Amino acid sequence: MPQIKLSFEKQILKTKMPFGISYGTKSDAKNILVKLTYENMTGYGEAAPAPYHGETIDTVMALLQAWSESDILGDDPFAISEINQKLDKFISENYAAKCAIDVALHDLSGKLANLSISKMLGLSGLQTQMPQTDFTIGLDTIEIIKQKTSDAIKEGFQILKVKQGTANGIEYDKQIIRSIREVAPNTTLRVDANGGWTPKQAVLMSHFLAEQKVQYIEQPIHKHSSAQDFKYVKDHSPIAIFADESVMRAKDIIRLADCVDGVVMKLTKTGGIQEGLKFIQMARACDLEVMIGCMLESSCGITAAAHLAPLADYLDLDGALLLANDPFNGATCKSGLLELKDAPGLGISPTSLSGLESKL
Amino acid sequence: MPQIKLSFEKQILKTKMPFGISYGTKSDAKNILVKLTYENMTGYGEAAPAPYHGETIDTVMALLQAWSESDILGDDPFAISEINQKLDKFISENYAAKCAIDVALHDLSGKLANLSISKMLGLSGLQTQMPQTDFTIGLDTIEIIKQKTSDAIKEGFQILKVKQGTANGIEYDKQIIRSIREVAPNTTLRVDANGGWTPKQAVLMSHFLAEQKVQYIEQPIHKHSSAQDFKYVKDHSPIAIFADESVMRAKDIIRLADCVDGVVMKLTKTGGIQEGLKFIQMARACDLEVMIGCMLESSCGITAAAHLAPLADYLDLDGALLLANDPFNGATCKSGLLELKDAPGLGISPTSLSGLESKL
Repeated sequence: MPQIKLSFEKQILKTKMPFGISYGTKSDAKNILVKLTYENMTGYGEAAPAPYHGETIDTVMALLQAWSESDILGDDPFAISEINQKLDKFISENYAAKCAIDVALHDLSGKLANLSISKMLGLSGLQTQMPQTDFTIGLDTIEIIKQKTSDAIKEGFQILKVKQGTANGIEYDKQIIRSIREVAPNTTLRVDANGGWTPKQAVLMSHFLAEQKVQYIEQPIHKHSSAQDFKYVKDHSPIAIFADESVMRAKDIIRLADCVDGVVMKLTKTGGIQEGLKFIQMARACDLEVMIGCMLESSCGITAAAHLAPLADYLDLDGALLLANDPFNGATCKSGLLELKDAPGLGISPTSLSGLESKL
Repeated sequence: MPQIKLSFEKQILKTKMPFGISYGTKSDAKNILVKLTYENMTGYGEAAPAPYHGETIDTVMALLQAWSESDILGDDPFAISEINQKLDKFISENYAAKCAIDVALHDLSGKLANLSISKMLGLSGLQTQMPQTDFTIGLDTIEIIKQKTSDAIKEGFQILKVKQGTANGIEYDKQIIRSIREVAPNTTLRVDANGGWTPKQAVLMSHFLAEQKVQYIEQPIHKHSSAQDFKYVKDHSPIAIFADESVMRAKDIIRLADCVDGVVMKLTKTGGIQEGLKFIQMARACDLEVMIGCMLESSCGITAAAHLAPLADYLDLDGALLLANDPFNGATCKSGLLELKDAPGLGISPTSLSGLESKL
């Protein structure tokens, strides 16, 4: 039997505009593109590491290098669960690296079976249930935030996600929201503090945000906050509280099940599609709402998440839209409505920007 | 697009010997075989209703009749999740009827894609991890129980599951175990009381069973027992306590997560493979052990469960082995070791006993 062959390369994704969140501002995302080949077929996956998830481009590349030199991937592209088990035994955490492998295996096995990932997962036909994605307004000067908001509305987005939790304190956070409301008085807004507030600040902000008709708050308090702190914020907030960085995999949901209203699933956090499904199912069993989010990712990673999108209540899958040089064509987005091709695997193809054919 | 066509028929499965559990003794299982056809391809599923799960052959057939006359199944055999959602909206509970549809859809879509269900689910390659199945010794006279035990050991079974919870009281239950230990002093035993004990009886029995080196107890107390009662039994039992009838779907696990050591997944309880996977994943996230069990089912239902078997710690998939007239060839069982064919869909084929080709 032929072995599954792993290769990978750095992928510097430039953003159209600098993108700021509470952890810092960046003008590019240093991701890693993974390519699995088997019987002349190629599966793609993307790793989008973040230091606040415990990974960097170097840790991801070190793992991929080790895996490419081992026989850990074996000879069966349909053995996704077994391979994921082996990766979990090899090393704990490191979900962005694992995500790239899991997604590439789904792409590869789908192509071998001539089935889209949606069909492989029995999720065909659910697209009509897909919620609209929001568009994210990063931290910036008030002037630029207003400009970005007005641009997004012109592009047809009906939901905006606003980054909060600035180093300037909650008065500046409030100023951001008020300025956005000037430009977008009726647009659906949600807020992501990326852990930038204390529990008391979060409660104060929740009342202000409720007045501003904000839908919900993502990760108001620190990633490592206690369940009690989340419960305190949830119990005192008039709007829903979602956990993002605090819940990586299905198992993490248990601890916070009674302390939040919803959870954010990202393939980069769960380690791919199989674990992503588990995460969503766990959330449902705990009566939690589900948002599917993303990192700054190309259409490779975004399209992978889009295959699970009909299972979510809310979507934040705008990662590729923020990029100046998307190396893939995949799920398209028109005024917040994602559309998937019914093509084998992920349904993505390299663009001229990828340089993939020459380099990989 | 062609519609998925549903037909079904009663399937009277005779047992080789009368089979007794705490709910009663029977000499046959009245199941329903479901056949979904699409583009000249056929998918099979089986419904094994039980009154103690809230279903009879008549309720299942009434639902199947209604569904066959509606357009609820639609035109996309890969839309398994969507169809399951529609069935759940149509009627709550009724998981045996839903199971037959879900399994037949998996069989059908696997055949259309030319992939085994294991491969569709990314579970290929896990077979080496499959635990052995036990063989079940039903309630009967002590003489017959001893004979059945000795027959099972001769057939190579290394694990026996002993039915308990007789109307004769726990002294008779103890007598059953002592008699089995005379014939099988070293065989691994597990016990299933099917809810036949009170919490205090269950604790008394747990100490006796621990002395008799019994591995664990399934459903010691009534299906509708409180979480506190389960917790009381778990806390006072030296051996593990599993919930079966008390946990149908993933959601039910939450309530008992801290009150039992393990849970039993049956496709008949979850409503099929997709919900079965959710159940197992939920149990894992709650740090519970998982047994996969079955009803009196033909090799159609048993083979469906066998595709998920590598995900379990313990197996009780002997349903078809207890039958005199199995209408299907499917997963084989040799001395407790199940083996699946790598064939499209379930990998089952009708036997001459099925009369399927003429009747359906």
